[in-house]
Amino acid sequence: MGLELYLDLLSQPCRAVYIFAKKNRIPFELRTVDLREGQHLSDAFAQVNPLQKVPVLKDGDFVLTESVAILLYLARKYKVPDHWYPQDPQACARVDEYLAWQHTALRRNCLRALWHKVMLPVFLGELVSPETLAATLAELDMALQVLEGKFLQDKAFLTGPHISLADLVAITELMHPVGAGCQVFKGRPKLAAWRQRVEAAVGEALFQEAHEVILKAKDSQPADPTLKQKMLPKVLAMIQ
Amino acid sequence: MGLELYLDLLSQPCRAVYIFAKKNRIPFELRTVDLREGQHLSDAFAQVNPLQKVPVLKDGDFVLTESVAILLYLARKYKVPDHWYPQDPQACARVDEYLAWQHTALRRNCLRALWHKVMLPVFLGELVSPETLAATLAELDMALQVLEGKFLQDKAFLTGPHISLADLVAITELMHPVGAGCQVFKGRPKLAAWRQRVEAAVGEALFQEAHEVILKAKDSQPADPTLKQKMLPKVLAMIQ
Repeated sequence: MGLELYLDLLSQPCRAVYIFAKKNRIPFELRTVDLREGQHLSDAFAQVNPLQKVPVLKDGDFVLTESVAILLYLARKYKVPDHWYPQDPQACARVDEYLAWQHTALRRNCLRALWHKVMLPVFLGELVSPETLAATLAELDMALQVLEGKFLQDKAFLTGPHISLADLVAITELMHPVGAGCQVFKGRPKLAAWRQRVEAAVGEALFQEAHEVILKAKDSQPADPTLKQKMLPKVLAMIQ
Repeated sequence: MGLELYLDLLSQPCRAVYIFAKKNRIPFELRTVDLREGQHLSDAFAQVNPLQKVPVLKDGDFVLTESVAILLYLARKYKVPDHWYPQDPQACARVDEYLAWQHTALRRNCLRALWHKVMLPVFLGELVSPETLAATLAELDMALQVLEGKFLQDKAFLTGPHISLADLVAITELMHPVGAGCQVFKGRPKLAAWRQRVEAAVGEALFQEAHEVILKAKDSQPADPTLKQKMLPKVLAMIQ
């Protein structure tokens, strides 16, 4: 059995892994785990990942979770072009710095923006107070300032003159609030220009394909009550 | 100017960086940033790290934040023994997996346990409700179950037969709730035995030295009102 990737493109980390594998022509079997169907909560998937999360990589007997670890594993195993995760220690450290920062900053904020603005009310039928939503969007705004001021600055890409894993993780993240209808790039010409560069580097067709699901997230069908009951505590824990 | 590390050993990520550098005989100048004195909020430190956080590494003109990125940079630059961050792609991926997982799991829970149980009431004079504290400790308990069940399993160390960066990041994390008086290892013989192995691998004297500050956190003097006012919103954002 070759490489298998368990993904749902509704999930940001899954989009990053999907684009990275496709862009670098890494052959894999796609195992779709439909999150809105609750397939990640099934007994079958618990055999793959007891933590019930996507993405998961299976390479023969080797099972790996955590998108950042998966991206680094693919980059090393398939010897992708250096710019994705440079050999130069300082350039590499810049990518590591972004990948570490985003976990509790941009990732948290983009996830909360999507769930508070769209997924909780539309999919799980849970109202979110205007105050909570406003606080979430204010936090997202602060994270975007750091993304632009500390990481992007006046460079072409987040960590230097070429696209790296940092850009891929960041852009797929930002498409979460974009999918929720947030004007993330409005009034931020530097970030908007960076987005164009990242899309061009990835390739428009692949970028569109990977983001089709999230850009239609607003049209999600409401979950049935049994599934809602099962999912709600996990969702609330995830976005706390 | 050689390598400089801006640290306060009250901070878990700083302890991991400190132990790693000392253990591997990496020469550095220690720049202490006293968090309880609010030195991280000073204009002088904002010149070093505008995000006002420790640890920070300075290597000549190269300034690096984020402890995970700093640890990886040191491991590569100083060619430390392989077991810390193995060349073997699958062994390395196991370390990456832990380092990615901990950001929003064990790190969050250990930080909250320390602040809710000790630092908020003792240092900032803010009462924490018994319900909040109970919820925090319950979450910590769940993260400890994952640490033991998914990562440690029946191995000597978290990612294999030898100590790696994963163990160092995890043990320094767990000493946060230990410093707060939580019985983290009680009723968890596997984790307790692992702790002994990690301490032995690091060296007892260095381990004790690095944890002296956190083990006395309960004796922190109350912050003066001006400092409290400055710190409280940042603390609440950090532990949310």
